[in-house]
Amino acid sequence: MKVGSLFLVPTPLDFGCDEQTALETSLPEAVQLQAAGLTYWISENARSTRACLKRISQKHPLARPLQDIVIMQLPQAVHKRGDHEGHFDARNLLEPAVQGHDMGLVCEAGMPAIADPGASVVRAAHALGISVRALVGPSSLMLALASSGLNGQQFAFVGYLPQDAAERSRRISQLEALALKTGQTQLFIEAPYRNVALFEALLRTLREDTRLALSCGLTLPGGWSLCLSRRQWQARPVPDLKAPTVFAISR
Amino acid sequence: MKVGSLFLVPTPLDFGCDEQTALETSLPEAVQLQAAGLTYWISENARSTRACLKRISQKHPLARPLQDIVIMQLPQAVHKRGDHEGHFDARNLLEPAVQGHDMGLVCEAGMPAIADPGASVVRAAHALGISVRALVGPSSLMLALASSGLNGQQFAFVGYLPQDAAERSRRISQLEALALKTGQTQLFIEAPYRNVALFEALLRTLREDTRLALSCGLTLPGGWSLCLSRRQWQARPVPDLKAPTVFAISR
Repeated sequence: MKVGSLFLVPTPLDFGCDEQTALETSLPEAVQLQAAGLTYWISENARSTRACLKRISQKHPLARPLQDIVIMQLPQAVHKRGDHEGHFDARNLLEPAVQGHDMGLVCEAGMPAIADPGASVVRAAHALGISVRALVGPSSLMLALASSGLNGQQFAFVGYLPQDAAERSRRISQLEALALKTGQTQLFIEAPYRNVALFEALLRTLREDTRLALSCGLTLPGGWSLCLSRRQWQARPVPDLKAPTVFAISR
Repeated sequence: MKVGSLFLVPTPLDFGCDEQTALETSLPEAVQLQAAGLTYWISENARSTRACLKRISQKHPLARPLQDIVIMQLPQAVHKRGDHEGHFDARNLLEPAVQGHDMGLVCEAGMPAIADPGASVVRAAHALGISVRALVGPSSLMLALASSGLNGQQFAFVGYLPQDAAERSRRISQLEALALKTGQTQLFIEAPYRNVALFEALLRTLREDTRLALSCGLTLPGGWSLCLSRRQWQARPVPDLKAPTVFAISR
């Protein structure tokens, strides 16, 4: 019996808020078609996956009625501490693929398994000999990096910075030192309600010539990207950072 | 007078070889439409940009006949040593945007300014107050990272490894030590004709439990991804790595 494939299916970056345009600006037609054809899914959040499939179904008929699509949700523990270290064994979730069905892996926004859970599922697929096929869609980190004008030949994504103010300042200085010394652009993110606090900590901590790029609400109406030196940022009003924002620093 | 925007336009990863399917699997409809509407371009390679626009024109009529599209090529020096450090001033290239025209920035494959030239143009756009808008398309690095099952919460792209065998081994060991200690996935690439040499160097150098992910020919027919320990790779025949390949290691 032939095993199925595991398709890594990206989703728009709007968390379901921009129903009019998100699909046609974010997902190639063939990706939408592929997603419409899958009946077994592993998901970070079954509700948002169902909403996304509903949006796709308005253009491409699903292989089965939405209520018959099987969506298995990754356990909460996986969301919290990440699932790339091998603590969570996802092989059971791939049973439909073992039985010959193609499956989809999907997160709430963007590419699955990047700054989001899902790595355990991909790892399990490789272990089971299930072929893994990543489909094209939005990656906020790459859109932000390209939009920054900072070094795209060498870069690192370091996730979230510490919440404690003193620890956060130390971490900012450490990342800045690394970026200035090696030229490796350092990308990081924050929960949107803490974006302004992080921005202000960056202004307090960075050297005046260090370049800081912000990309806010990427792919969304009103989204923007701007890269300025710390000195230049300081001469402007604090930007509106309510939407998801990617931060990057480099020399 | 209103200045134009700079659109960062991704391109399929097939370098023009897969005319049948590349656009519909790689670029959202709205991105193709946006590209079709632009008459001023800055490009890594004018010939491949013209070929890409020709493919797009088969579905979406261009704003002007192809021969009237203005494609300015980045100078060779920019390709060779990268253009993110501020040595090349790209402001002149953005003159059409200053005069109110939207412009496109495009590379040979994938996202512009990521593992490809273009950062100088984005930097100049920010300096000139030209709004930068990255469009969704393929990023081989993110497709490879998602497909690896390795840590996607923390990762670095380090570009090319040294060509000299001894230096390359040292660099591999250094990247491995960093990945094992911090958990930061290390991604790198090589010119396709050196992929097998790099793979063999990895097998000679890595510890037996270190996980090595290869993604070869991503988005292309016959493309594949596989992540195994060094020990497991060693027990298999050397894979066909003729297509562009992304390498990644982690614990």
